[in-house]
Amino acid sequence: MFESAEVGHSIPDREYKRELPKLRAELLNTQYALLKDRKFPVIIIIGGVDGAGKGETVNILNEWMDPRHIHTHAFGEMTDEERERPRMWRYWRALPPKGRIGILFGAWHTDPIVNRVMGKTNDAELEPAMQEIVRFERMLVDEGALILKFWFHLSRKAQKKRLQAIEADPKTRWRVTETDWERFRVYDKFRKISEAALRTTSTGHAPWNVIEGSDPNYRYLTVGRAILAALKHRLAGDRPAMTRSAPLPEPALDGRTMLSGLDYGKTLGRKTYRSELEKYQGRLNLLTRHKKFRDKSLIAVFEGADAAGKGGSIRRVTGALDARHYQVTPVASPSDDERAQPYLWRFWRNLPRRGRVTIFDRSWYGRVLVERVEKFCSEEDWMRAYHEINDFEAQLAQAGGIVTKFWVTITKDEQLKRFREREKTPFKSFKITAEDWRNRKKWNDYELAVSDMIERTSNECAPWVLIPANDKYFARIEILKTLCERIEGAM
Amino acid sequence: MFESAEVGHSIPDREYKRELPKLRAELLNTQYALLKDRKFPVIIIIGGVDGAGKGETVNILNEWMDPRHIHTHAFGEMTDEERERPRMWRYWRALPPKGRIGILFGAWHTDPIVNRVMGKTNDAELEPAMQEIVRFERMLVDEGALILKFWFHLSRKAQKKRLQAIEADPKTRWRVTETDWERFRVYDKFRKISEAALRTTSTGHAPWNVIEGSDPNYRYLTVGRAILAALKHRLAGDRPAMTRSAPLPEPALDGRTMLSGLDYGKTLGRKTYRSELEKYQGRLNLLTRHKKFRDKSLIAVFEGADAAGKGGSIRRVTGALDARHYQVTPVASPSDDERAQPYLWRFWRNLPRRGRVTIFDRSWYGRVLVERVEKFCSEEDWMRAYHEINDFEAQLAQAGGIVTKFWVTITKDEQLKRFREREKTPFKSFKITAEDWRNRKKWNDYELAVSDMIERTSNECAPWVLIPANDKYFARIEILKTLCERIEGAM
Repeated sequence: MFESAEVGHSIPDREYKRELPKLRAELLNTQYALLKDRKFPVIIIIGGVDGAGKGETVNILNEWMDPRHIHTHAFGEMTDEERERPRMWRYWRALPPKGRIGILFGAWHTDPIVNRVMGKTNDAELEPAMQEIVRFERMLVDEGALILKFWFHLSRKAQKKRLQAIEADPKTRWRVTETDWERFRVYDKFRKISEAALRTTSTGHAPWNVIEGSDPNYRYLTVGRAILAALKHRLAGDRPAMTRSAPLPEPALDGRTMLSGLDYGKTLGRKTYRSELEKYQGRLNLLTRHKKFRDKSLIAVFEGADAAGKGGSIRRVTGALDARHYQVTPVASPSDDERAQPYLWRFWRNLPRRGRVTIFDRSWYGRVLVERVEKFCSEEDWMRAYHEINDFEAQLAQAGGIVTKFWVTITKDEQLKRFREREKTPFKSFKITAEDWRNRKKWNDYELAVSDMIERTSNECAPWVLIPANDKYFARIEILKTLCERIEGAM
Repeated sequence: MFESAEVGHSIPDREYKRELPKLRAELLNTQYALLKDRKFPVIIIIGGVDGAGKGETVNILNEWMDPRHIHTHAFGEMTDEERERPRMWRYWRALPPKGRIGILFGAWHTDPIVNRVMGKTNDAELEPAMQEIVRFERMLVDEGALILKFWFHLSRKAQKKRLQAIEADPKTRWRVTETDWERFRVYDKFRKISEAALRTTSTGHAPWNVIEGSDPNYRYLTVGRAILAALKHRLAGDRPAMTRSAPLPEPALDGRTMLSGLDYGKTLGRKTYRSELEKYQGRLNLLTRHKKFRDKSLIAVFEGADAAGKGGSIRRVTGALDARHYQVTPVASPSDDERAQPYLWRFWRNLPRRGRVTIFDRSWYGRVLVERVEKFCSEEDWMRAYHEINDFEAQLAQAGGIVTKFWVTITKDEQLKRFREREKTPFKSFKITAEDWRNRKKWNDYELAVSDMIERTSNECAPWVLIPANDKYFARIEILKTLCERIEGAM
């Protein structure tokens, strides 16, 4: 969930200064259109780690737009008045009316997360609080509200650096308190708990946007443009379908993605490959025959660009397994029977029982990849799918499933090379079709879809593992190693 | 929630025989239309207490319609296969495809409820299971399914009678097992837990229909007609809005309601009234000043027919209270400010703090009464409101609120008498307007709306108390007494 906000996004000052006047003018105009229209309220929620620029962003939004029509609320300790009412009371009091923008700084998600991190509550108490929030936001959306949720993220290292920088400057020193450092000391716990909280509350109608907080230019422009796009989208429809109110994800402003940040130059010599292959295949074999594995199951998902080498990697995995214990499920277009059911149905049918392994060669992620890019389903359908998929995988994990998802990826040049090779080699030419060339033309659309997918569905209980596969040997060993580590971690 | 299924509904044989042929023909035709259309699957869920005719209803539905196109599944103990997968796996396997009807006998709600009743799980485990179900059904509806949920209910007495009757007949004796009697012994627990479960999972898009199970004619016709109406409603729209798939509530076939079953003849002499009034006002006063009440609050809702005497009753309540501790909130049409917010907003604003009392003279129930009858909001809006209101009241109860809701009711004749009296009496004539007469014309629409409201929102933590108020003295004392008992019960 947070990986996409650790790629080092930044916008140079010159570009920032060039973009800003237009953005400000447009934001202001749109704000007035909203005010005139008075059809729906806009609720902007600001959360995230300390030092990631939450406060500054709130200030700048008030600077960019007309602050007289913005209701900004920061929630700290509860007052007496608030403590004597239901938990949600103070948030109800802060809701903006139709036509207005409310900026809620540390809104309803914050207390349950912080209380959990501080050990004041346990997991069994966190979950109902999150579900209460899901129902609350659903009701707000059904009542017409546009909800925009921004989570400002910093990596551990970046947070430390940032707190130190603020502290070093005499002018800003006052802003770093002992509480900030206390919270920094529980960074890992905070990250883990807030990831789970975000996963539960990131729904199709009110998804979280995770913003990398380290570069001010990047974070201001990103938030500003996301607000602008969502407002325009919503104002354009007269009385749009309820779930349409969700803002669609946008590509990162600096064009960087998790994929572009990968090191595609990693290679492995043939000799090392051979010995590593033997080593990890042996380890994987032993692990899946281990007594403790009888209470677990392994669900390995392979997704990736065409010609990235998924098939070859899968064969190296199955080569390590007892044929009675695994199943490879290749996923193509759904059959008529499958089309007559919810899209997750065909995957539920193929779940392994305990002690077994199922490898999905392509998977339920088709919903947010090909179905999104090719418009086989509606915007609302793929927008809600992230939440449904997270829910599905959480159920798998709950039942002992070790869910591991590989995105096997190559550079665009490497793909071209492989396509041409396949065309030339008679026994490989069946592997390349006109569709592969068509897909290639949509490289950018897919890259955006993949980024969103990873941002919204990678989490601790079912992580995405990105495998740069320009070198097949390197990729295969990475995959085998990851599977071994995941099983070891679970047992 | 179950009160509406304890009014003694029944249909005479002659009427049943007259209605049946038409219903069967229509059901069969509609089933074929569904099959031809192949646009959506129909999921019929059958749950409820033992002996309430669940099995017989499943059989008769298969008899009435073409069983080749009905998938009937009964879920008992989990198989090995099922135990080794996520809990929902076996239900996914049983989902009907588009165009078909699936009858699920003891579906996903059953296990969590039964496990809780049997003490195998606790409340903290029940709640997440229910939320999982809400998400699952939401997903099914978003994927196009029509979900019809029937809960067959019997009062404690009726269940005992029925089990004994089955047991007495040598031909049917085999059907009553020791398990049935075991479950009967925990009737009260089962009732309480299933009520909470139904409240959580009765949503706007997949509401529960509670069916009184004692009379076979009534239960078969009611279920059959509900299925027919929902299918026709859905088949009529080409690609209807998602939440439209919910079946609208229908009036009871025998015309009986909880209101019609009330005893309006109860009266209280003036002298008794005086002494009772003094007694209960004194008791209420002491209770609200009690030390333990400082952690509680009282939220009393007054709804009722025009001229039923809400105002007079409220004055007898406030007469018992310290003016610094209570507030009466009269609810009229929303102001512009209120209209710019979600409909519950104005009620949240007026919640009492701990140790205080708020009396709502009319309330949030306007959403499912006047707004429904006068079509001020859409079907989807009031259909989802039951769930939202239950959620709201559960939050109040959670925070120490003692929520008590009075439906103050009079007969239609009595209303006419009072209207005329008001017109004649100069100092009362301000109380009667053209609108009152207009509302009176919609008596039947309101009666249906009131029945649905009570069925869907009365529950242990926020019960509806029906007050027959043809005799004002009787009504006032009943109200005061109820408030005292509710507070005593909570402290």
